Amino acid sequence: MHEFLYKNNQLYCENILVERLAKTYGSPLYVYSYATLVDHFVKLRNAFASLDPLICYSVKANSNLAILKALVNIGAGLDIVSGGELSRALEVGCPAKKIVYASVGKTDQEIAKAINKGILFFNVESLPELVNINRIARGKNKVIKVAIRINPDVEVKTHKFITTGKITNKFGIDLNSAYKILLMRNKFKNVCICGLHIHIGSQITQGAPFVAAIKKVSNFINKISLKGIGLEYLNIGGGMGIIYDNENPQSAQIYANQITPLLKKTGLKIIMEPGRFIVGNAGILITKVLYIKKTPKKKFIIVDAGMNDLIRPALYGAYHNVVPLRKISQTEKADLVGPICESGDFLAKARNIAKVKVGDYLAVMSAGAYGFSMSSNYNSRLRAAEVMVARGKIFVIRKREVARDLMRNELIPGFLSKP
Amino acid sequence: MHEFLYKNNQLYCENILVERLAKTYGSPLYVYSYATLVDHFVKLRNAFASLDPLICYSVKANSNLAILKALVNIGAGLDIVSGGELSRALEVGCPAKKIVYASVGKTDQEIAKAINKGILFFNVESLPELVNINRIARGKNKVIKVAIRINPDVEVKTHKFITTGKITNKFGIDLNSAYKILLMRNKFKNVCICGLHIHIGSQITQGAPFVAAIKKVSNFINKISLKGIGLEYLNIGGGMGIIYDNENPQSAQIYANQITPLLKKTGLKIIMEPGRFIVGNAGILITKVLYIKKTPKKKFIIVDAGMNDLIRPALYGAYHNVVPLRKISQTEKADLVGPICESGDFLAKARNIAKVKVGDYLAVMSAGAYGFSMSSNYNSRLRAAEVMVARGKIFVIRKREVARDLMRNELIPGFLSKP
Repeated sequence: MHEFLYKNNQLYCENILVERLAKTYGSPLYVYSYATLVDHFVKLRNAFASLDPLICYSVKANSNLAILKALVNIGAGLDIVSGGELSRALEVGCPAKKIVYASVGKTDQEIAKAINKGILFFNVESLPELVNINRIARGKNKVIKVAIRINPDVEVKTHKFITTGKITNKFGIDLNSAYKILLMRNKFKNVCICGLHIHIGSQITQGAPFVAAIKKVSNFINKISLKGIGLEYLNIGGGMGIIYDNENPQSAQIYANQITPLLKKTGLKIIMEPGRFIVGNAGILITKVLYIKKTPKKKFIIVDAGMNDLIRPALYGAYHNVVPLRKISQTEKADLVGPICESGDFLAKARNIAKVKVGDYLAVMSAGAYGFSMSSNYNSRLRAAEVMVARGKIFVIRKREVARDLMRNELIPGFLSKP
Repeated sequence: MHEFLYKNNQLYCENILVERLAKTYGSPLYVYSYATLVDHFVKLRNAFASLDPLICYSVKANSNLAILKALVNIGAGLDIVSGGELSRALEVGCPAKKIVYASVGKTDQEIAKAINKGILFFNVESLPELVNINRIARGKNKVIKVAIRINPDVEVKTHKFITTGKITNKFGIDLNSAYKILLMRNKFKNVCICGLHIHIGSQITQGAPFVAAIKKVSNFINKISLKGIGLEYLNIGGGMGIIYDNENPQSAQIYANQITPLLKKTGLKIIMEPGRFIVGNAGILITKVLYIKKTPKKKFIIVDAGMNDLIRPALYGAYHNVVPLRKISQTEKADLVGPICESGDFLAKARNIAKVKVGDYLAVMSAGAYGFSMSSNYNSRLRAAEVMVARGKIFVIRKREVARDLMRNELIPGFLSKP
């Protein structure tokens, strides 16, 4: 559920007319509902209440400081994947002991900084990384907690770019290798392998792959406990799917019902890393119709948001529902395209879209996750503004870029400036 | 040809050791050769010397101010596609009368600004856009030059996202519609249709599609001249392919030999819009090996550059040659992947790559075009630095981003800051 609903045929974000936001702040514009954001987090927490997990919101889904702060305020930890995300986590005052750090490519500087700040643990993706963290921790005379990311080799039905739990992916460590590492854990004097981590992919709508992965890792936990290896944490990652189109994802409660018994049996502290589930449907992208172009073959609705603002359709073939801010009963088949000079710049293809006219606004739904966070300045386009509606008020949480922002770090060599 | 060559088994950019650049400025790092950049421009100019065309470099390929300034200094005009690119063009002192402006989605503000600055002309992509430019020009009591972008409906063998001259693409106006528009040109009192524009796609390695498109448009010019419609400009766009792998693209001279006779016959002033041809092989992306990860199925070379730095492999399945900065004779099949948390984050797949070790540097070749210009902050990664080698010296032309840059425009609402 989310708080983007029509009242009297006009789209509202909570109790605020979305068109008012578009007219005040311009377009393209990301709009977030604070109530929806909080609601999704609370639903997940309640569903898993009997486990009292640490819910580490996945910063990469949407890293805006206001989003992070809102979630941290209500008890979320943060799942980070880079030094930049660590800076963000610290900026919003997330307690370090609620930060977990994954990524196949952590640099020495990133590892050192995370150790210095005292994060809860690293999710370790390979033996060389474990060796490296051990080396850096030794240099600091510290013993650092890590969780081994297991690649459980389960099949997941999602886009090939966001399946991460197959053995052919770059992520995690296969069970055999993990077993060997755990048996030789005493070789690593400066790391404490305190947990296991799994994350099998993103936008997974069914429970079965999660159950399969958790069963595999549960069996593994039993196997190593027979060798006297005890753990403290089980990090089950994220990946819960949301509704973009006609998906029918399991609810937080059904998901919890499926896996809670399995998780309880492990006796470990559970960590979760939801991103899209929390923020995906808490945000929309507003765009204005610039031109209606009818060619002999097609109708194109040309809008002011492009693939630089939302790359999911181009990159993953992702579906986003598109609705007008003022309800229009008639629809017509059209391609919804942006101003960028490539054919890949589309938001919807051959879709029945409301018969809008120039100047009308459209909402691209479910754009809260992997929307702004993947945006770029391609075609020297200014990145969009972001606003949050909360408690009947409107807050600008990211100012629209200006041309100065584009060129801020650029320098023209002296020999080129003197003719 | 380009100036990234091995000497004594080490990669140089002109006379500068690339490893020195990586060690001084860090990685990932974009490195450009000024000599190569200029050479490509001059080659094109010389090949077409008998036509004396206005060569408008396509800013979207690489919009760094230093690149633009270098080309403007030697006589290039600029092909822009947004208000942001107009700001850049003006920033480097490009004469307004050497700027042409294309894009299917020009906003009113962008059109007004371009008119105010006095650009040469707009490439107009649709009848509604023509109407709109006419309306805005009328408000300013001006008569504005435009070229009609013709969609010649020719087949081009390139990635579907970068073919732009088929009638099913969003670009340009079909010949029949263009004919009707020209016949009723007197209805538009505030625009002067002074030219035609074609641009059939990008990374096209053979001459045939260009010849086909130019023949179509030449016939069209003859047809309209019979109706007493005279033109001033023919803008033949860009799209010339370069060598990434084993392509064998036509040289500038062969391309010129093919089309010059056709172009001469039109009697029009020729405009060209090359981007990739000029800058594609004038830049490389340097990345450092972070981890070598061997799984039961694959070898992964994990480097510090990701899809946020270079999205072409993920978005287009593009091939970039990858070579070590220090020559290594042995190779091994591996996936070259970045630190980003998706399986789409790769630079090369199942490729025979030099047997590098941790800490070694690799050069991703041919990264000058659509490299940095498409980069993003995904995973809150800092965008790379860019350096240019010129005349034996090194110039930082873009400083590496810092964490402050990531959060610069973000604001946390007051109600979230007070607990």
